[in-house]
Amino acid sequence: MAAAPPIRILGIDPGLRNTGWGVIESLGPNLRFVACGTVHSDQTLSLADRLRQLFDGLSDICHTHMPDEAAVEETFVNKDAKATLKLGHARGIALLVPSRAGIPVSEYAPNLVKKSVVGTGHADKDQIRMMVKVLLPKSDPKSADANDALAVALTHAQHRGIQALTRSLMR
Amino acid sequence: MAAAPPIRILGIDPGLRNTGWGVIESLGPNLRFVACGTVHSDQTLSLADRLRQLFDGLSDICHTHMPDEAAVEETFVNKDAKATLKLGHARGIALLVPSRAGIPVSEYAPNLVKKSVVGTGHADKDQIRMMVKVLLPKSDPKSADANDALAVALTHAQHRGIQALTRSLMR
Repeated sequence: MAAAPPIRILGIDPGLRNTGWGVIESLGPNLRFVACGTVHSDQTLSLADRLRQLFDGLSDICHTHMPDEAAVEETFVNKDAKATLKLGHARGIALLVPSRAGIPVSEYAPNLVKKSVVGTGHADKDQIRMMVKVLLPKSDPKSADANDALAVALTHAQHRGIQALTRSLMR
Repeated sequence: MAAAPPIRILGIDPGLRNTGWGVIESLGPNLRFVACGTVHSDQTLSLADRLRQLFDGLSDICHTHMPDEAAVEETFVNKDAKATLKLGHARGIALLVPSRAGIPVSEYAPNLVKKSVVGTGHADKDQIRMMVKVLLPKSDPKSADANDALAVALTHAQHRGIQALTRSLMR
């Protein structure tokens, strides 16, 4: 019997100005860093054109890295409704792009990402950065957004087995 | 000298469940109804797949009706942050689709739409419906969303001349 191929996961941390992304491979308990980075949008452009920049950037990443599954961080809904709405626009694009490529998309709350990667839902940015480096020694995120995206991908690697099991039990 | 061709305007009233759209033609003070309708998303699907349905539906409309310019209603930011976020996702798609097609996108606040179409920023749905019918006698919107989208297109028809003048003065 041939060995099962690794699953390639794209993690996305959406933001209108900077959308972080990270690609990892997961084969059972083994994890491998593939690539990560940030898609920027130009603040001098219109909102519609900035969303197109995010769409084009994320579409290129899907095309280049051919992920099997995607995971997007859920948005922290805060009291600043205008900021929430802005983030909603960017998050819509982050969910759309993998769906258009036929890739299943999972969503994870920030607290679950922290809990999955660090072990506590109240971890700070430094703790997340440290644990991403421990789990993916070859990763080199140049921004907090790229690092967060890798954390989302790691969270999905941990939870996807449980999701598949739940789906098979519900059949 | 050949007569200037009419400008074809796509108005969009974004919503996750129902996104209204309406296409009109504007030639100076003359307005003509072209088409209108609603793009639905299936509530039983994932958020990512619902956004793809909106994307596909709006992309088809752009392809069929070939608008020159687009106008999207600004979202009323309310106290329900979760509802605001949901609407933000749909609105991101509504802004993205025309931008991808190379069509300039303008945004209009709901009060400005009411003021432009009815004459007062506090007009109700019935007044808007009545005025859309007066301005576009051949229109037959089957839903409030399609009607609102026509109202957004009419608002843009009224304001685009002022915008073009401002742009030329700023050069």
